[in-house]
Amino acid sequence: MHMISDRAADIAFPDSLFDERRARLRERLDRIKLSYLLVTKPVDIFYLCGFKGSAGVLLLGPRQARLWVDPRYTLQAREQSRGAAVIESREGLSKAVGTWLRRARVAAIGHQEAHLTCAEFARFRERARGRGSGPRWTAAGPILDELRMIKDPWEAERIRRAGALTASVFRDVLPMVKPGVAECDLAAELEYRMKRAGAESPAFETIVASGPRGAWPHARASGRRLQGGELVIFDLGAILANYAADMTRTLYLGTPTRRARRLYESVAAAQRAAVDGLHPGMQAGQADQLARDVLTKNGLGDFFTHSTGHGVGLEVHERPRLARGEQAPMPAGSVVTVEPGVYVEGYGGVRIEDTVLIAGDGPEVLTPADKDPWFTS
Amino acid sequence: MHMISDRAADIAFPDSLFDERRARLRERLDRIKLSYLLVTKPVDIFYLCGFKGSAGVLLLGPRQARLWVDPRYTLQAREQSRGAAVIESREGLSKAVGTWLRRARVAAIGHQEAHLTCAEFARFRERARGRGSGPRWTAAGPILDELRMIKDPWEAERIRRAGALTASVFRDVLPMVKPGVAECDLAAELEYRMKRAGAESPAFETIVASGPRGAWPHARASGRRLQGGELVIFDLGAILANYAADMTRTLYLGTPTRRARRLYESVAAAQRAAVDGLHPGMQAGQADQLARDVLTKNGLGDFFTHSTGHGVGLEVHERPRLARGEQAPMPAGSVVTVEPGVYVEGYGGVRIEDTVLIAGDGPEVLTPADKDPWFTS
Repeated sequence: MHMISDRAADIAFPDSLFDERRARLRERLDRIKLSYLLVTKPVDIFYLCGFKGSAGVLLLGPRQARLWVDPRYTLQAREQSRGAAVIESREGLSKAVGTWLRRARVAAIGHQEAHLTCAEFARFRERARGRGSGPRWTAAGPILDELRMIKDPWEAERIRRAGALTASVFRDVLPMVKPGVAECDLAAELEYRMKRAGAESPAFETIVASGPRGAWPHARASGRRLQGGELVIFDLGAILANYAADMTRTLYLGTPTRRARRLYESVAAAQRAAVDGLHPGMQAGQADQLARDVLTKNGLGDFFTHSTGHGVGLEVHERPRLARGEQAPMPAGSVVTVEPGVYVEGYGGVRIEDTVLIAGDGPEVLTPADKDPWFTS
Repeated sequence: MHMISDRAADIAFPDSLFDERRARLRERLDRIKLSYLLVTKPVDIFYLCGFKGSAGVLLLGPRQARLWVDPRYTLQAREQSRGAAVIESREGLSKAVGTWLRRARVAAIGHQEAHLTCAEFARFRERARGRGSGPRWTAAGPILDELRMIKDPWEAERIRRAGALTASVFRDVLPMVKPGVAECDLAAELEYRMKRAGAESPAFETIVASGPRGAWPHARASGRRLQGGELVIFDLGAILANYAADMTRTLYLGTPTRRARRLYESVAAAQRAAVDGLHPGMQAGQADQLARDVLTKNGLGDFFTHSTGHGVGLEVHERPRLARGEQAPMPAGSVVTVEPGVYVEGYGGVRIEDTVLIAGDGPEVLTPADKDPWFTS
């Protein structure tokens, strides 16, 4: 077992993990007749070789993997990288990699068109060409996103721990949720406790949106103070040992009105329907439909203005998209959020979200925090 | 004065701010004979019209600005946007914008090639073309980065406040810095206090790197506990009302050894030389040289493995780059970091950094935290 010396020091990677991932990627590349892939997205570089720096370029070849870094990252890359030869470059990574491609006379190469910018791509291409014609460049498509969609048991356990931490931190902060407290102070408290509990960082800026601000699905926590007789949305998630979780709960301050209760219960029913319906092989769009049907039946379809969920893993938003019409099947090992919501301008919003593992023996909720007591008490 | 209802509620934008910025941009576009610019980078969209969402596309035309958003952001865009017509799209932003460009028969348009991915660019281009030839697309270059480099007094005041908050939080946490404390607990404490003091968020993941980990210039805070007889690097910054600050301090736990003192004093002298030398119009590379010369003279040039600094503003890394050979002049109103460092594998590192405003009456340090007492006591 190797250890990495980062925050994740307590989490050991199986020795074979990165070799297996690269082998699976090579199989995929073979199918589209590519021997080389230029990996420029940092999270994919981590997935394939364990290097966690924010800048680096990984070139996966038929037999070898090479990782170019600038001098800031040389020591770190040597320590973290598993199975990729580390090359330090002081002249700019695109220049160094491009020159290598030209000298090695690489004929065809894939690139990550959904991550690489037009400007970076032009630089790699120009350097690799030199005065010749250079390699043929192919948009590799979502090949790595698809690989990363299926979590092995080792990864599922990481997300389970991140979800447990997220739920536990939320429970701890609940007693502080009362009229007069500022949204941003609750957000600060949640994020502080995540870190103290061992999280690397929040997976995204924690949302605490009270009253009318809850009608903005992506409101940030503001200086607004909570008031009685209002809905409050909490959307939070921790990154623990590189893996994220994502969870939303909605509370009501006081005895819920009929209106608040109707909105809440409709969303809760929609969320349960979609979670309970998750099974390996179902289309992502079907899960969206399960939630949408419940809200539509309750006359709230028009207030559900976003899609039902998204994959979670090394990134907090990844494949699949649980959205209308998405036909991609979700295999066993997919981890997705289920987060229907309704948003009423000038009044407020309700959203309920769990991170869920899709498994053959039924869906497993990975964010085990209570939901309904504020509405049933 | 308009108020925005986000965290920055206490900070009023001058009414004319966004109009003036768009007018300056149009002047620049005129010079390169472009009437339209497709703005896809969120921070630039905020700079030009005040919308803070994470997804949106701004099209700046000769007279009008149009902001496309998806339904998640409609309410927020209507409330925040200044001088741009908000258009809600449920069909995907590239589709909606592309169709608009085609129907309006736009002949030539600039795009942000350093932000737009190859895949997004292909989608816009395809939609805008339809069955015709579509507009001629031009890489607009760093036109917005150059505009944003010069901070007006209103912006400088925002960064001054972010810097004061950053320095104050660091001072407050100093008494907790002692052997036995974990790096990540100090990082959590710093970030929590930033938020409680009103910051939107940390500008980046706070670095606390002790002992040998300090030899990684971009080490993250780990579970490692501080030990006596070690150097510790703190690199932190807050975002307050949309603007960032960036500051690094290095401490020594105990009575500094000769080796630690020599490293520290060399870096401190290099940092002072570069800060004191900053003046409007100087080339960014000259500032780098000022710091580098001092370290080279002290035999430490090879241990200074990165560049001297970078611009700070709406982003914590923006133009200019204070790096070897950079000839871009730094006008009055530029705000930059000065952060030389030395890194010794197996031993540790020293880095000292301030955020500094370049002004006609001399450089102004915007991160006013003490530096040397741990080495002079």
